[in-house]
Amino acid sequence: MNSSRCAACKHLRRRCPSDCIFAPYFPSNNPRRFAYVHKIYGASNVGKILQDLPVSCRAQAADTLCYEAYCRIKDPVYGCAGMVSVLHQQLNVAECQLATVKAEVAAIRNDSAALTVPTWFD
Amino acid sequence: MNSSRCAACKHLRRRCPSDCIFAPYFPSNNPRRFAYVHKIYGASNVGKILQDLPVSCRAQAADTLCYEAYCRIKDPVYGCAGMVSVLHQQLNVAECQLATVKAEVAAIRNDSAALTVPTWFD
Repeated sequence: MNSSRCAACKHLRRRCPSDCIFAPYFPSNNPRRFAYVHKIYGASNVGKILQDLPVSCRAQAADTLCYEAYCRIKDPVYGCAGMVSVLHQQLNVAECQLATVKAEVAAIRNDSAALTVPTWFD
Repeated sequence: MNSSRCAACKHLRRRCPSDCIFAPYFPSNNPRRFAYVHKIYGASNVGKILQDLPVSCRAQAADTLCYEAYCRIKDPVYGCAGMVSVLHQQLNVAECQLATVKAEVAAIRNDSAALTVPTWFD
């Protein structure tokens, strides 16, 4: 069964059982995907997280674990939390700009209401 | 030295060495902080991540690891990546609203320019 081992079992140099918890989410053609989660969480912790979830949620959990592990490898200090912080700042900037432009619209409308030709001109 | 063990060494039931990699970032008065990272990453992986960083970056790394571990415990499927996804959506919404309101301002300005009393009326 050597040729059909998943990326996790290849990485861990073990036989890939038919009910391998990793096999559906860590295919052999993408070894880096498992290498990332292995480096940050360890195989045992990833296996435990997946095992504790319903089968229908495991693919999504494997994807998000890979994403977070990749972020931590790229940025060992801030990891994925750094991205949360950057997005919070960008959201604050966008919301402040929105409030400013909305206030501008309201001011323009007030001005144009004041300049409207009175009805007794009709 | 039992009373001065850090939260990690207490959790791992071991002596806390004077150069403990965990002690500065996992004080004994906050045992949950270490419990979170231990559950998700394992003590050895957290120790390795901290050890590979300059001392000046370790507190921030410990904080972000705790944050991500807490997110994963609260949301085992999406973890911190779920927060990134939500913030991306909120940012998109805010930026779309901003573009709409800016277009509204431009349209109002165009209308009012068209209605401006010509200079030869002065």
